[in-house]
Amino acid sequence: MNKETIREIVEEMVKNSFQKDKMVPIAASNRHIHLSPEHVERLFGRGYELTKLKDLSQPHQFAAKETLTLIGPKGKIQNVRVLGPVRGSTQVEVSLFDGFTLGVKPPIRNSGDINGSEPITIQGPRGQIMIKEGLICAARHIHMHTSDGESFGVNDGELVQVKVDGVRGVIFTNVLIRVSPKFKLEMHIDLDEANAAEIKNGQLGEIIVALESRKQVGEK
Amino acid sequence: MNKETIREIVEEMVKNSFQKDKMVPIAASNRHIHLSPEHVERLFGRGYELTKLKDLSQPHQFAAKETLTLIGPKGKIQNVRVLGPVRGSTQVEVSLFDGFTLGVKPPIRNSGDINGSEPITIQGPRGQIMIKEGLICAARHIHMHTSDGESFGVNDGELVQVKVDGVRGVIFTNVLIRVSPKFKLEMHIDLDEANAAEIKNGQLGEIIVALESRKQVGEK
Repeated sequence: MNKETIREIVEEMVKNSFQKDKMVPIAASNRHIHLSPEHVERLFGRGYELTKLKDLSQPHQFAAKETLTLIGPKGKIQNVRVLGPVRGSTQVEVSLFDGFTLGVKPPIRNSGDINGSEPITIQGPRGQIMIKEGLICAARHIHMHTSDGESFGVNDGELVQVKVDGVRGVIFTNVLIRVSPKFKLEMHIDLDEANAAEIKNGQLGEIIVALESRKQVGEK
Repeated sequence: MNKETIREIVEEMVKNSFQKDKMVPIAASNRHIHLSPEHVERLFGRGYELTKLKDLSQPHQFAAKETLTLIGPKGKIQNVRVLGPVRGSTQVEVSLFDGFTLGVKPPIRNSGDINGSEPITIQGPRGQIMIKEGLICAARHIHMHTSDGESFGVNDGELVQVKVDGVRGVIFTNVLIRVSPKFKLEMHIDLDEANAAEIKNGQLGEIIVALESRKQVGEK
């Protein structure tokens, strides 16, 4: 480690020590399904529309009353919640633990990036479909409003670390920042990650802008 | 952050940068049961003794052929592996995810520290027992031989951080060091933690002796 690197690290640490407000509430996402309009009809019947059960934290997103069954080569998982509104492509998000139950290996992907991901069979009350791709394990990420991005000094697409305290303390690395005027500040992880750090919904994590990840982004 | 603290951090970092061999193989422990001799007889019949299926990585420890069923208020889990040899007290180790399946809240504990932990019912082929305490979620820890402790510069009872690389990279904090001439170098985590960092058995993690945890130990 040379002098220059040490200087950079110290500067980063000193800078971070003056920004004490980079706290983000954390929410664990259970397994869920986003459906295309076509698949809604094939699973629930012609002309069917999803019914809102409750609003989610991100604006306009909702948990639907509808649930479906996932069927894999080794097992099935019932009562998997459908989220709305409908999307362009059907996407199923499960944990790696769920993957073992189903007998599939979902790749870690950002939402929407389903090209070449795993196939899965979905059973509904009026039909069954087999999607050739769309099963993923969602990569951890932070939604934030444009104003949060500005006050935290982070950019859309940047990778940060998030520190969670406690007996099972963890620092999550490679956490993707997603900035949009449509987003509300919240970090999303899956149940494996929540259990690994014994995180309760709404618990706060501290965003650490690591020199290392800054460099990674710079290399893109 | 004052000058003195910055100096300490830099010294620690520079020192760490010269110790590049603090790598530890990681193994994920699935749910398992340690039994007292009395409970072996109550679950499997009088005079019964456990049969070795295969040796585990730690000397003299083995996976037994025998499995049992855990029964909680909300669900049960079948085919839970018994480990041998028998111990003074029965101890059941599950993940937090398993806890949700069973409907119990296992506390995060070091192995052997079962005082006031959760009750659970265990079903065997020849009997059923209800232990009043003994259900825990094992705290992450590193077994190491005395010689490893010396070469790594860490002590029994110390808390360190362990960095795991990858898309789902994680730095585990509060990792307990356990040093003994009977131990072989290996970090033990549960399945939730393995999934959270997408760790394959045998994958290496890097031990980081954090200034922070050094201080915690010093305060004991």
